[in-house]
Amino acid sequence: SGLVLVKNPHLHLMEEDVLYHLDLGTKTHNLPAMFGDIKFVCVGGSPNRMRAFAQFMQRELGLAGAGEDVADICAGSDRYAMYRAGPVLSISHGMGIPSISIMLHELIKLLHHAKCRDVTIIRIGTSGGLGIEAGSVVITDTAVDSSFQPRFEQVVLGDVVVRSTELDKDLAQELLACSRDIPDFPTLIGHTMCTYDFYEGQGRLDGALCSFSSEKKLEYLRRAYDAGVRNIEMESTAFAALCGLCGLKGESCLFHLL
Amino acid sequence: SGLVLVKNPHLHLMEEDVLYHLDLGTKTHNLPAMFGDIKFVCVGGSPNRMRAFAQFMQRELGLAGAGEDVADICAGSDRYAMYRAGPVLSISHGMGIPSISIMLHELIKLLHHAKCRDVTIIRIGTSGGLGIEAGSVVITDTAVDSSFQPRFEQVVLGDVVVRSTELDKDLAQELLACSRDIPDFPTLIGHTMCTYDFYEGQGRLDGALCSFSSEKKLEYLRRAYDAGVRNIEMESTAFAALCGLCGLKGESCLFHLL
Repeated sequence: SGLVLVKNPHLHLMEEDVLYHLDLGTKTHNLPAMFGDIKFVCVGGSPNRMRAFAQFMQRELGLAGAGEDVADICAGSDRYAMYRAGPVLSISHGMGIPSISIMLHELIKLLHHAKCRDVTIIRIGTSGGLGIEAGSVVITDTAVDSSFQPRFEQVVLGDVVVRSTELDKDLAQELLACSRDIPDFPTLIGHTMCTYDFYEGQGRLDGALCSFSSEKKLEYLRRAYDAGVRNIEMESTAFAALCGLCGLKGESCLFHLL
Repeated sequence: SGLVLVKNPHLHLMEEDVLYHLDLGTKTHNLPAMFGDIKFVCVGGSPNRMRAFAQFMQRELGLAGAGEDVADICAGSDRYAMYRAGPVLSISHGMGIPSISIMLHELIKLLHHAKCRDVTIIRIGTSGGLGIEAGSVVITDTAVDSSFQPRFEQVVLGDVVVRSTELDKDLAQELLACSRDIPDFPTLIGHTMCTYDFYEGQGRLDGALCSFSSEKKLEYLRRAYDAGVRNIEMESTAFAALCGLCGLKGESCLFHLL
């Protein structure tokens, strides 16, 4: 039916659903009226960038109000920022798996309550590239963990539950085809590695702690490259797992900054 | 010597240290002049709350400018917000271990470069209480993981490194003594459990996914209570481990909201 699924038998028993971190709710807001026509959701770490992206979409789509400021739909909360431009919702998720997970749980419930259909979700943002040209965009075919496995280990009440991190392969090809229309826009499809830590987890030598040698770092990154990893970030496995379970067609397109 | 330590042999070889997510650096800013006299650092998830806390400290300490707005020292970045009130620094860290870890790595390097001495760091914020009165403050003696163990498992280049999560017991007693001076201020010392997930990880029945029964939830929370857990949040194990390793006297004081 194309509807966004929630997999929670308790949810329909609740009289009210407060999406606390988004400052929205089923009793305080008419979610179908506000969001029922949303077809695309773009998510990224930084609130400023997601505002700039909404303004960019407004111009690209030739919408009324283009060039003007856009209003933060979640202005009552400082956890996340949300903007819309026509059928496109642009939301920040902060940094790391726990932060994006809270946002995605509430976003998925929002799309469900709003009765949205056939929604595509794309994570956009920056990442560290691995053996690729600076300025390249990596479209993720599969998100992998720090052991290069296509899985997300979620701890549910102390027990580890393993979830799949496959993303939408047709969507990846579609996005790759789009990139071909733009000159000098290096784009590739590859695995994206997701870590829980930015400094020690990704082999950075400039953290407050560094418990490994540069040789060990190079050996690890070489193994990651050989396993198909082309970039590293901190949210993709949770993003792939949650979107996959809830029937959202998802992809991640990440820009390799340096 | 009371100095803040960095445990990274590569750091002193660097010509410049850019604290990227704080929008500060050793070449662009005079860190000893800006921060050398800092004695207390308070950290919490929400940027708005940390600004309100800095304004509160300004009034409490009777500083010039009390009642006026305070400037965000990290205004050039939207990842974190930082304010100061006399010897007190107030910084936001977002939600979850990955987010607080990035901030702490850069904060610890900042305090190190600024040659700060005898710094006390306190995490303040809200948490979910376990078998305690709403409105209580829990002072953490030990941060535990979702198996109720006093450890932080950090993945370093794919390998798990286990770190201790003990906090400063004298500081905990000192803070408890302070709370006694205020009437009707229920305060206790207990273990704080840190999870990677807010919904499924903490047994919430209102997420987009819920793969457990309410019976299983109650049984798990009962076991947590029996293990000494009095509140649940998402940052304390990483906070305790990083502060402990870098010679920061650390504590966490969390308010049980509901």
